Amino acid sequence: MKQRVSKIGVFDSGLGGLSVLRTLQRELPTCSFVYLGDTARTPYGSKSPSTVVRYSQECASFLGKHDIDLLVVACNTASSVALDEISQAVVCPVIGTIKPAVRTCLAMRVSHSELAERPIGIIGTRATIQSASYQEEIRRAAPSAALIASACPLFVPLVEEGMTSGPIVEQAIEHYLAPFRNEGVSSLILACTHYPLLMGPIREFMGPRVEIVECADAIAREIKETYEQPENGTGESHFFVTDEVSRFNSLASFFLKGAAVEAVKVEAL
Amino acid sequence: MKQRVSKIGVFDSGLGGLSVLRTLQRELPTCSFVYLGDTARTPYGSKSPSTVVRYSQECASFLGKHDIDLLVVACNTASSVALDEISQAVVCPVIGTIKPAVRTCLAMRVSHSELAERPIGIIGTRATIQSASYQEEIRRAAPSAALIASACPLFVPLVEEGMTSGPIVEQAIEHYLAPFRNEGVSSLILACTHYPLLMGPIREFMGPRVEIVECADAIAREIKETYEQPENGTGESHFFVTDEVSRFNSLASFFLKGAAVEAVKVEAL
Repeated sequence: MKQRVSKIGVFDSGLGGLSVLRTLQRELPTCSFVYLGDTARTPYGSKSPSTVVRYSQECASFLGKHDIDLLVVACNTASSVALDEISQAVVCPVIGTIKPAVRTCLAMRVSHSELAERPIGIIGTRATIQSASYQEEIRRAAPSAALIASACPLFVPLVEEGMTSGPIVEQAIEHYLAPFRNEGVSSLILACTHYPLLMGPIREFMGPRVEIVECADAIAREIKETYEQPENGTGESHFFVTDEVSRFNSLASFFLKGAAVEAVKVEAL
Repeated sequence: MKQRVSKIGVFDSGLGGLSVLRTLQRELPTCSFVYLGDTARTPYGSKSPSTVVRYSQECASFLGKHDIDLLVVACNTASSVALDEISQAVVCPVIGTIKPAVRTCLAMRVSHSELAERPIGIIGTRATIQSASYQEEIRRAAPSAALIASACPLFVPLVEEGMTSGPIVEQAIEHYLAPFRNEGVSSLILACTHYPLLMGPIREFMGPRVEIVECADAIAREIKETYEQPENGTGESHFFVTDEVSRFNSLASFFLKGAAVEAVKVEAL
């Protein structure tokens, strides 16, 4: 019998994880959510592992006090370098981004010969790529797979600037993704919660033969397969940020398009 | 008689202040320096004033314990929103970026009619521009001056990526600075310590009629005019960062070109 999860904690270094929350709200409508964005110390992606571990543990402990049945680490950087330490900080199960995304990516492909011929591409923050967490997970599950990975540090500031199309975005995509296109990747894992907001121009640049893997969909699928959801539930969400609330309100509407952002409750830690 | 300063504390939200330190080392060769970069919580420019105030006070208190005669706030964001609180956290005098830069800018111009005709331009982080600290300081000193100010949030990530020329940089400069060129600004204040690393392409885009004001030169001039330096001194520098040292070493060489970075002593807080 599957364990039931009613209340899910979602943690991100900032507000990028709201794109994951949005998918979870849609796919798990009877669950309720507690979101924490560490906006006072964001970004994690350019910081060293020991600092990311310390911050992640503090955030996990905070969410652990909110009676959650499951903790989703929506931040790829924290998932890459701090998942074990986060699991020690809470009593509930923890899901990171890596295993679900890799499982989704490999489920798309069947032929072993193709796995060796057309590499799997991975893009993320500097910390995520340097940790080699995605590379190791893929090698464990599919040792013959060819890989190509690269950090794209300009993508997060572009998204946070509201720049998701136009000449600067196109130049940046060309700069970072040309090697992936030249290598003929079969799939591209967007190993950062900000990157799906650049989906349009990334898809256009990579062309129709490349499968794009988003962490949010993969995490939602993993939760549905592993856990049972309540039959009835309010589906309410509660929001916390570590920086001032005003900044949250101005950015949250961008990530939670179509959601009633004005209705959310936000408290400073 | 002028007060003597032998040991100067230099504080920045990250490593951009190293460009200020470099100028101070050159202009004040008999002074010694203690540098603190809050690399574990950088950047400040996208965070709210209350958070920047809290972080800045903690950093100032740390430097205050190192027997400094003067504290230079090399971070424009901290200078803009937290200078009073920083002054309360230490017993020595404090110099921020704003007054020196504005004084330097206005010293370049003489005619009042020209001040009204050709605006002064100011570019910086979102927090610096929104604080209106530069705008208010200029209006106090030259009420008739026309002003134009804008945040350029992509410049810091570009510099930290090592991108200081090329098509993405040119697109970003065109995007942010076209209004300044169209308005025919007389001068442009680089109100962020990262921006001088884009000096070449900024100067090329703005043309020879526009004076570019750098905070580092302005601060060095202010210190030389206000204080007396020791006749002899080792000129040694001591470095502290809040994130891991390894990341400092890889970026510091970029900001401290030509300096013996391998010789510096760095400790985590």
